[in-house]
Amino acid sequence: MAARAERRSFWTWGYVSDEPSDAERAEAARGLSERIGAEVAPPATPQIVDIELRKPRLEVPAALAGWVSTDHAERVTHTYGGHSLELLRAMRGEFVDPPDAVAHPRNEAELEATLEWCDRAGHAAMPYGGGTSVVWGVNAPADAEGAVTIDLDEMNSVLEVDDVSRAGRFQAGILGPDLEAALKGKGLTLRHYPQSFPWSTVGGWVATRSGGHYATNHTHIDDFVESTRMLTPRGWMESRRLPGSGAGPSPDRMVLGSEGTLGVISECWLRLQKRPVFRATAGVTFADWANGCNAVRQIAQAKLWPANLRILDPVEAAASAGLGGNSALLIIGFESADVPQGENVRAAVAIARDCGGSIDDDAIVVDDGDGRPTGRAGAVGAWRNAFIGVNAGLTAGIGLLSDTFETAITWDRWPAFDAYVRDRVGAVLNEAVAGGRLSCRFTHVYPDGPAPYYSFSGVVPVGAEEERWRAVKDAATAAVVAAGGTVTHHHAVGRMHRPGWEKQRPALFGDLWRATKRSVDPNGIMNPGVLVDP
Amino acid sequence: MAARAERRSFWTWGYVSDEPSDAERAEAARGLSERIGAEVAPPATPQIVDIELRKPRLEVPAALAGWVSTDHAERVTHTYGGHSLELLRAMRGEFVDPPDAVAHPRNEAELEATLEWCDRAGHAAMPYGGGTSVVWGVNAPADAEGAVTIDLDEMNSVLEVDDVSRAGRFQAGILGPDLEAALKGKGLTLRHYPQSFPWSTVGGWVATRSGGHYATNHTHIDDFVESTRMLTPRGWMESRRLPGSGAGPSPDRMVLGSEGTLGVISECWLRLQKRPVFRATAGVTFADWANGCNAVRQIAQAKLWPANLRILDPVEAAASAGLGGNSALLIIGFESADVPQGENVRAAVAIARDCGGSIDDDAIVVDDGDGRPTGRAGAVGAWRNAFIGVNAGLTAGIGLLSDTFETAITWDRWPAFDAYVRDRVGAVLNEAVAGGRLSCRFTHVYPDGPAPYYSFSGVVPVGAEEERWRAVKDAATAAVVAAGGTVTHHHAVGRMHRPGWEKQRPALFGDLWRATKRSVDPNGIMNPGVLVDP
Repeated sequence: MAARAERRSFWTWGYVSDEPSDAERAEAARGLSERIGAEVAPPATPQIVDIELRKPRLEVPAALAGWVSTDHAERVTHTYGGHSLELLRAMRGEFVDPPDAVAHPRNEAELEATLEWCDRAGHAAMPYGGGTSVVWGVNAPADAEGAVTIDLDEMNSVLEVDDVSRAGRFQAGILGPDLEAALKGKGLTLRHYPQSFPWSTVGGWVATRSGGHYATNHTHIDDFVESTRMLTPRGWMESRRLPGSGAGPSPDRMVLGSEGTLGVISECWLRLQKRPVFRATAGVTFADWANGCNAVRQIAQAKLWPANLRILDPVEAAASAGLGGNSALLIIGFESADVPQGENVRAAVAIARDCGGSIDDDAIVVDDGDGRPTGRAGAVGAWRNAFIGVNAGLTAGIGLLSDTFETAITWDRWPAFDAYVRDRVGAVLNEAVAGGRLSCRFTHVYPDGPAPYYSFSGVVPVGAEEERWRAVKDAATAAVVAAGGTVTHHHAVGRMHRPGWEKQRPALFGDLWRATKRSVDPNGIMNPGVLVDP
Repeated sequence: MAARAERRSFWTWGYVSDEPSDAERAEAARGLSERIGAEVAPPATPQIVDIELRKPRLEVPAALAGWVSTDHAERVTHTYGGHSLELLRAMRGEFVDPPDAVAHPRNEAELEATLEWCDRAGHAAMPYGGGTSVVWGVNAPADAEGAVTIDLDEMNSVLEVDDVSRAGRFQAGILGPDLEAALKGKGLTLRHYPQSFPWSTVGGWVATRSGGHYATNHTHIDDFVESTRMLTPRGWMESRRLPGSGAGPSPDRMVLGSEGTLGVISECWLRLQKRPVFRATAGVTFADWANGCNAVRQIAQAKLWPANLRILDPVEAAASAGLGGNSALLIIGFESADVPQGENVRAAVAIARDCGGSIDDDAIVVDDGDGRPTGRAGAVGAWRNAFIGVNAGLTAGIGLLSDTFETAITWDRWPAFDAYVRDRVGAVLNEAVAGGRLSCRFTHVYPDGPAPYYSFSGVVPVGAEEERWRAVKDAATAAVVAAGGTVTHHHAVGRMHRPGWEKQRPALFGDLWRATKRSVDPNGIMNPGVLVDP
């Protein structure tokens, strides 16, 4: 497969062609001005040639010059991941810690040469994935003496498809849409759609344990990994393709969540699905958030394994699905390549109704293989469209704060957890942000607990974004950890969540992971500062 | 909960009361004599007082004397796990490497004191679980200067049950039946039934990644672990109760499969189920093994997630389920606490019939909550009873070789894998074993491949059991590894599978795991020789 034809935007999600126009950004600013009753204007669209970068602190050896460069635009576009504060800095032309060079190895030999060079010279090596990290996982560390970003965008092929076992072998640099396009002709699909899907890679998904399409049962990419191949500074580590195993500790489970700190994932075998034919969808409203959450719990515990089981709280249901503001919306979706799903959706709806949910019988949409669209109309469809659109650049720099945090918690603690988090984060929002709004939905659900996803937004003085964001984020992390949750269900740890993760994980586990890392990365070059210090 | 009232047998599975009588053993020997046309007689039942043991090479500190002892019977009953060669040695009074002392800590403080003593004195520490290891995972290493078995049979309580999240907190020493008995009154169940269930423990299950009741979807205990608490020589490592997380590498996944090499698991939170109310079962016969396997694949890939989906090859179907010897038997079972399962079983049967399977409509048994027994009659019931009975002592010492090996392999390679394994193992059986028999069933099934379980048996000269077993086992391991499988799907690595595992796992992973181990067990006292050398 050819390399990506188009350059990624350095200040918004996606490609240069995804960048909002000056007119669109001015329109967004006008909308905000009306809302807050004060004039705000967007900063000028940054131009790549205007960005000032520190001189590269290294020289690329001649033997590597075919795929490693210190090109200005390359360094600019690989400085940041996808977090809103990063995009804000990019828009303002602040590029304090760019990588010194960017590598685009075209094969494993070039990847080996790249890592050998970094290891020998002591350069930090940061695997880039698709650059969509929202947890500061792809940046050059501030204290590095040389830093090389490794972008596998040229290693983006589908190497094999096994349609008997339903699995495929993918180079790590392949993007979501390219992977799905290659599988479509074979009637197969990975069906892993993190929100970053258009721009993120197989390698990034596996390194960060990304969360995908399925709201229940097989929620993380972990569940679809059949084997991994990773280059560490000490050499290759490749696991065997196995449908299951109990042979000691699992090598793949060390690679999953390693976030670039052990090595660079070069390829993976992933489990695939046949494309769904049978579908069934229902949107159930609840006058009461607690009742809705209770319905989610009972449906999850009935082990019907719906593909979708996402509840939006009243704030979110109003903003994303057009509801009135007093009702929560539970979206239930089943799908199968082989078996009609009408009975499953009716069983789930029965549970939801028993818990106080409302839905008309004729709003239960069942496609028994006839291609009748499900889930694209009404509130469910409105939510679907809101989820798919991500355009951080539209409002960057006009003082609109907008971010999310996500977690998981067992059901017994959920109501108190939710109240505590809303109280603590709400207090800081009230203080630090004008018109602050906090809302919640579940992205994934387990029989023993939900994965709640909180969104917050509001208006802050231009220039104060980082300080105000820090206040809210710190309150959120502190509350989540204190109330028993995880700092992240599927966004990864990176550098952002590391302080919270250190409180959450067993203390001894830090020593253990450092020792693990040292065994394959003795010079500590792999993504330093992510997860642990070397 | 009180400690186990009864002593475990040192030469057969189970308690002293499970030991077969002299008359039963003589009857088994008569049966074999008739079959082979030569007279064999069972060795005398060994008596614990007659066993000669090496003197303990250590002295138990006075402070630990309340729970650590060098008692003769204690050392005898903790010398071996449950593998047939071990039981054979026990029956013959061969106890070359007994532990020097056995600890039964009654609480975590006593467990800490035990491990501190071992670490300070350099004694090997072997967590015993329920002593049912069939892979030589609980023995004192031959080269230890002192060896202490740690048996948590006094730490066997249910500490908490959370019936909202459906999870329970269990001390690691609790046995399967005690755990289920404690949950029954709450309408809950773990439903994890490894074949060792009556005698094995939560700690052992987690340390060895045991395989359980569910043939599809959640097959290993791994899937039910919500958190773990483990004492290492460097201190405690306790993870947070979470329904799911993507926060870096998972601490629990380091504990799962650690096989006692990192520390002693003291307690776990495990996910529970409501007891099933709705059940449906079908036994489908196939004239052709390949067609039956194909049906299993297609049912697994339809993601109906049956609790049971086990196919027996014609040899096994004849021996365990009473079929004629020309048919394979596929046992399909669904269960749910909430939802009727008739439609699911009919969907699975439809797939099986499409693949050439035979079953009468009235042989599909559906219990829609009325308590109608399913799966206890006919061929399905016969197989169920054969699975539950394990009595290795009955035929030990009369020259009957009987063992199993189990693996997992992707579907694309399965037919060639099966042919290759049968060819290689069959050749050795023909040479080394009289009347050698090799059969196969699937214990667990994944969308991308089965977990085949092979049984072999035959008659060998009394005294040659170990040599002949070694020939067959080596052929089996070599074939499994060469053809792409795993050395174990759920029996663990122990010392038995270590050479095969070394070929199977990434070479670098050995270094990585040794470094991981050293970080929490710097003196290498934890179960030395299992998985890796210190």
